[in-house]
Amino acid sequence: MRPGEIVAEGLAPPAGPVLRFVGRIRTPWGPGECPKNIGKARETGRGARVELDPAFAPALLGLEIGQPVVLLYWLHEARRDLLRQSPRHIDGTRGTFALRSPNRPNSIGLATVRITALDGAAGTLGIDAIDCFDGTPLLDIKPWLERVDLPPAP
Amino acid sequence: MRPGEIVAEGLAPPAGPVLRFVGRIRTPWGPGECPKNIGKARETGRGARVELDPAFAPALLGLEIGQPVVLLYWLHEARRDLLRQSPRHIDGTRGTFALRSPNRPNSIGLATVRITALDGAAGTLGIDAIDCFDGTPLLDIKPWLERVDLPPAP
Repeated sequence: MRPGEIVAEGLAPPAGPVLRFVGRIRTPWGPGECPKNIGKARETGRGARVELDPAFAPALLGLEIGQPVVLLYWLHEARRDLLRQSPRHIDGTRGTFALRSPNRPNSIGLATVRITALDGAAGTLGIDAIDCFDGTPLLDIKPWLERVDLPPAP
Repeated sequence: MRPGEIVAEGLAPPAGPVLRFVGRIRTPWGPGECPKNIGKARETGRGARVELDPAFAPALLGLEIGQPVVLLYWLHEARRDLLRQSPRHIDGTRGTFALRSPNRPNSIGLATVRITALDGAAGTLGIDAIDCFDGTPLLDIKPWLERVDLPPAP
């Protein structure tokens, strides 16, 4: 805990739906080596892979090399009880919902990446880069769509 | 089920982490009225609201009116066992991971919206529009960041 950080006290255990891991993200990054954000991961020039559980390989039909996709994954080492955080890279304290920190009530990571390779039979994708640990559990792949995923005009 | 759709047979029950609902999304849309996508929701000119559980209101600190944010939410009426789907609006069948259908192994919805109002004490946000039912459970709010959330150049 750093100065200014606030923990949610007395929260009941989570009681919502149960997640299903559909595969793993294979990256070059072990503990202590992970780039701080996806931009820095891209600067390394090192790609990554998605390995689906074989049962889910048929769900890749229609994806294509070159296409951007959104990956959702579970940051299994993160805290789920922090309401306000004081990250090293900013001055002061911010609410968890104003940060991209892995520490959040539901530790779901979100990355927008480009498909660089695809093997539908094996259930694997190559992706340009990502900033998560090797072995991170995958929750979802969604096609990135400009008309849906760009913010509306101000 | 429509022609060409494939169900994952013999899946074990989900056994991953348990989600925590942190609030609800209040929208004008009941069953049978929901716009098909966020573009059509915007065309109606009708906004929506996020109501956090009071325990999570402190986590809004640092968000600002006008800022784009990503909402993650749980589509609680969706199927979780479809590998391939034949939506009415496309020809033929596609894998679930090539579609934005609510039916997916983890029924997590993703919307990029703009904050139109903010009450940090009450734990509420106004948002420009969204295409989900009134009462949809909220999982997360993340700041949308151009350097993170735009796809990389091809």
